[in-house]
Amino acid sequence: VEENRKKYTLGELAELLDISLQGDCAVMVSGIATLAGARSCELSFYHNSAYISDLKSTKAAAVILSTEAAQDCATNILLTDNPYLAYARASRLFEKSTSSNGQIHPNALIDSSAEIGQHVSIGPNAVIGANVRIGDRSIIGANVVIGNSSCLGEDALVYPNVTFYHDVLVGNNAIIHSGVVIGADGFGFARNDQAQVKIAQLGGVIIGSDVEIGAGTTIDRGALEDTVIGNGVKIDNQVQVAHNVRVGENTVICGCSAIAGSSSIGKNCIIAGGVGIINHITIADDVTVTAMTLVNKSITRKGCYSSGTGLSESSVWKKNIVHFRHLDTLSNRLKAVESLKNKKNTKN
Amino acid sequence: VEENRKKYTLGELAELLDISLQGDCAVMVSGIATLAGARSCELSFYHNSAYISDLKSTKAAAVILSTEAAQDCATNILLTDNPYLAYARASRLFEKSTSSNGQIHPNALIDSSAEIGQHVSIGPNAVIGANVRIGDRSIIGANVVIGNSSCLGEDALVYPNVTFYHDVLVGNNAIIHSGVVIGADGFGFARNDQAQVKIAQLGGVIIGSDVEIGAGTTIDRGALEDTVIGNGVKIDNQVQVAHNVRVGENTVICGCSAIAGSSSIGKNCIIAGGVGIINHITIADDVTVTAMTLVNKSITRKGCYSSGTGLSESSVWKKNIVHFRHLDTLSNRLKAVESLKNKKNTKN
Amino acid sequence: VEENRKKYTLGELAELLDISLQGDCAVMVSGIATLAGARSCELSFYHNSAYISDLKSTKAAAVILSTEAAQDCATNILLTDNPYLAYARASRLFEKSTSSNGQIHPNALIDSSAEIGQHVSIGPNAVIGANVRIGDRSIIGANVVIGNSSCLGEDALVYPNVTFYHDVLVGNNAIIHSGVVIGADGFGFARNDQAQVKIAQLGGVIIGSDVEIGAGTTIDRGALEDTVIGNGVKIDNQVQVAHNVRVGENTVICGCSAIAGSSSIGKNCIIAGGVGIINHITIADDVTVTAMTLVNKSITRKGCYSSGTGLSESSVWKKNIVHFRHLDTLSNRLKAVESLKNKKNTKN
Repeated sequence: VEENRKKYTLGELAELLDISLQGDCAVMVSGIATLAGARSCELSFYHNSAYISDLKSTKAAAVILSTEAAQDCATNILLTDNPYLAYARASRLFEKSTSSNGQIHPNALIDSSAEIGQHVSIGPNAVIGANVRIGDRSIIGANVVIGNSSCLGEDALVYPNVTFYHDVLVGNNAIIHSGVVIGADGFGFARNDQAQVKIAQLGGVIIGSDVEIGAGTTIDRGALEDTVIGNGVKIDNQVQVAHNVRVGENTVICGCSAIAGSSSIGKNCIIAGGVGIINHITIADDVTVTAMTLVNKSITRKGCYSSGTGLSESSVWKKNIVHFRHLDTLSNRLKAVESLKNKKNTKN
Repeated sequence: VEENRKKYTLGELAELLDISLQGDCAVMVSGIATLAGARSCELSFYHNSAYISDLKSTKAAAVILSTEAAQDCATNILLTDNPYLAYARASRLFEKSTSSNGQIHPNALIDSSAEIGQHVSIGPNAVIGANVRIGDRSIIGANVVIGNSSCLGEDALVYPNVTFYHDVLVGNNAIIHSGVVIGADGFGFARNDQAQVKIAQLGGVIIGSDVEIGAGTTIDRGALEDTVIGNGVKIDNQVQVAHNVRVGENTVICGCSAIAGSSSIGKNCIIAGGVGIINHITIADDVTVTAMTLVNKSITRKGCYSSGTGLSESSVWKKNIVHFRHLDTLSNRLKAVESLKNKKNTKN
Repeated sequence: VEENRKKYTLGELAELLDISLQGDCAVMVSGIATLAGARSCELSFYHNSAYISDLKSTKAAAVILSTEAAQDCATNILLTDNPYLAYARASRLFEKSTSSNGQIHPNALIDSSAEIGQHVSIGPNAVIGANVRIGDRSIIGANVVIGNSSCLGEDALVYPNVTFYHDVLVGNNAIIHSGVVIGADGFGFARNDQAQVKIAQLGGVIIGSDVEIGAGTTIDRGALEDTVIGNGVKIDNQVQVAHNVRVGENTVICGCSAIAGSSSIGKNCIIAGGVGIINHITIADDVTVTAMTLVNKSITRKGCYSSGTGLSESSVWKKNIVHFRHLDTLSNRLKAVESLKNKKNTKN
C-alpha cells in the first residue's frame, strides 16, 4: 500500500498544513499512523487524553498536538489548536491519487448529446445517457450508469457501479461511492379497491456541492417537487433518503439511517447510525439524534434526542419488557396508592 | 425536465381519467404540481384538509377534488370521490416514457438459448444467461445480469445494475429498481465443532405480477422450497427478504425493513419503514406495523402493532432507561406497597 | 431447476456423508426436501420435534435423523448424531455446480500487471485493476470491478456486480454475493468552522479465509489501520461494517446489522438481524445479541443480550410510551410512598 504515497519533510508538512513545527524540519515522513502503531518514518496525532501514555511512548517522527500536550511528547511536534482537523488535512497529503487522468475508456458508451468537460476520466462500460453534462476534471468509474439529462459538477469522483436515473443534478466536488442509486422512484401508491396504484415520480433530485454519499445509499427522486440535499452534507453507507426529503447544509447522516418521505432535516445536524425518521417530520438546525432512535415527531429545538431502552442481558430484558406493556396500569396503581396515602395523611 | 412531458386539454384529461370536469375544457395542462407550487399550466389535487388555504389560493389550471371541497376552489375542477387515486392515475399521464423501444444494444450479451419476447429492449453490457426467458415489451437496463433459467414476464421494467441469480421467476408488469439482488443464497449454516458449514440454498424465488421492488432491496432464494412474493406486492428501497419468506398479495413493505427466514406475511398488510420481523413468524392479513417495530412473535389478528419507546431528549432518556432495566423490581416494589396498604385497610 | 442436480443411491449418500444407512442402499435420490414436501425420490431430514408428525407420514426416500427418532420413521434412515449438520453436508451434493470453468470472457478487462491463477473464470465486463492477484480456481462474475492491488485467494466465488476498491485482501474459499462493496472510504470527518473536512482513509481491508458476505453488504476500509474480518466469519445481506472494525473468527452477523467505527466483536458470536453496535465498543467472545438490539456499551462477558420493548398493539403502546418518558419520576414517586410507609411502620 506504500508505493503511491508521497513523502514530505517535517518542514514541508508544517508549511503545507500552515502550522508551527517544534523540532527537526529535515526529518522525512512517508505516512500517518496511530501513536501506538507509528514507525519512525510516520506522522501521528494526539487529540484524546485516553491516549496520553501512547503519546509518551510513541515512535512517530512527529505528533500533531495542541499546546497543553506538548510537554508529554518526546518527539517532534506540529503545534495547532485543533489537532484532529490538522490530522484530517494531513491525511489528504498521503492518500493515493484520486485525480483524473483525463482518459475516456474506449469501452465507455457516451451518448453523442452528452457534454463532457475538460480532462474528465470515464471508466470502461460506463454508460452516459442523452443530454448528460459532466464537469471538468470529474472521474466516472467503471460500470457507472448515468441517466438522461443528469448533470454532475466539476471535480466529482464517482466510484464504480453507481447508478443515476434521469434528471439528477449533483454539484461540484461530489464523492459518490459504489452501489449508490440516485433518482429511483419514490415509494408512492394510491389504493383502489383491488390494488395499489403507482404514483409516477415526476420530480428530480438536486444535490449541492461538497457532498459525499456512502456505498449502497439510495436517494429517491421527488413525487412532484425535487428531493434536495444541501451543500456540504455527508451521508454514510446504506442510508435511505425517500422522495421529497430535504437535508440542510453540512448535516451528517451516519450508516443505515432512513428518512421517510417529505421529511426535512435542518443544517448542521448529526444523525447517528440506524436512525429512522418518519414521514412529514421537520427537524430543526443543530440537532443530534443518537443511534437507532426512532424520530416519530418533529423536533423544533436544537439539542440531543434519543429513543430505545438501552442494553440488558436477555434474561433480565425478558422480565422487564413484560412490564413495559403494562406501564400505564402500573402508573395508575401507583396513583391509587398515593391518593390513599394522601387521604390518610389528611385524616391523620 | 419538461421536454418529454405530454400536454393535455382539461377535456382530454377528464376523459382519460373518466371523471367529470367543471370548467373550461380547452385549457391546456402540461404537468402536475402541489397546490402551492402549481403554475397556470399545471394540474393539482386536494385530498387533505391541511391544505385548504392552498386550495383557495392555488394558481393551478385545475384541481382534482371531491364534492365537499368544490366550493373552496377558485379554478377549474376535476371531480371525483377519490382525489388521491385520480392524482395517481393522472401522474402516469405526465411521466417520461418508460415503454420499450424494442432495441437490443449490440453490447448486450445474450446466451443463444435465451428466449427473448417481441419488442423487448436490452441495454448495453446486460448479460442474459442460458435458458432465460423475457416476456414481450420488457425493458432490461444497462449492466443488468440475469442468471441461468430465470424468467421475467411481459411489460417488465428492470433498471440498470440489477442482478438476478439463476431460477428467479418474476411475473408481468414488474418494476425492479437499480441495485436490487434477487436470488442470492439464503443465510443458512449448521455448526460443527470448528466452524459454520454452509447449507446449499436449493430453492428459487417466485415473484408474482404487478410487483415493484425498490433500489438496493435483496430477496434471497429458498433453502429447499421457494421464497414467494405475491401479486401486487410493493417493496421499497433497501428491504431485506430472507430465504423461504412468503409475502401475501398487495402487501406494502417500506424502506429498510427486514424479514427473517421462513416468516410469512399476510395479504394487504402495511409494514412501515425499518421494521424487523424475526424468523419463523406468521403475520395475519390486514396488519399494519409501525416504523422500526421489532415483531418478535406472530401476529394472529388484524390491527396495528408497534414497539419502541418514543422520542425523548437524550438527557431525559438516559435517566429513564436506567429504570427500564429495573421495571420488574419496580413492579414488585409497588406490589409490596399495595399489599401493605391492603392489610392496613383490612386492619382498619 | 432439476436438470443440473446430481443423483445418488442411498448407499452412495451414506458413504459420501460418512453416516450409517438403515434401509435399501439401491434407492435413487435426486434432491432434498422438507419432510412434508418430499417425494419418493427425495431425501429429507428431521432435527426438530415440532415436525414429528411430518416424520411419521413423510414420503421421502430416506430421512437423516438421530437414534431417538428412528422408531418414528417409516422410511429408510441415514443415522447421525447431528442431523442438521448432515443435512448441510448433503445439501452441497445437490447444488448446481459452482466450480470454475476456467474461461476468461473476451469482454473482461484485465490489467496486464494482474496475476491470474490457474483455471480461474472471469465473466463479461469484469474489470480487474493493476497488480490484482486472483488465486487458482476462483470465479469472478459479470460486471465485477476489482480495484488496484487487491488480492483474492483460491476457490473464491464472487457473484456479479460486486465492487472491490484498491488494497482489499480476501482469503481462500470466499463467497461474495452481488452488490457487495468492499473497501469504500470509512466515514471520517473533522469539523472546522464552516464545514466537515474529509479524513483520507489510508488503511485497507483484510478478510480471512472461508468468509461469506451477503448481497448488498458494505465493508469500509480503515482510516489508518485495516478493517479486519476473521476466518470463518459469515455475514448476511445488507450489513454495514465501518472502518477499523474487527470481527473475530467464526462469528455470524445476520441481515441489516451495522457495526460502527473501531468496534471489535469477539469470536463465535451471533449478531442477530438489525442489530446496531455503536463505535469504539468491544464485544467478548461467545456473545449472542438478539434482533434489533442497540449495543451502546461494551459487552465484557459471554451471554445473550437484548434491548427494545417487545411488541404491543399500537393503541396499548401509545399509552405506555407516555410513561416511559416519566419512568424516573414514577420511580421517585414509588420511593416516596415506600419511605412514608416505612416511617408509619416505624411509628406503629
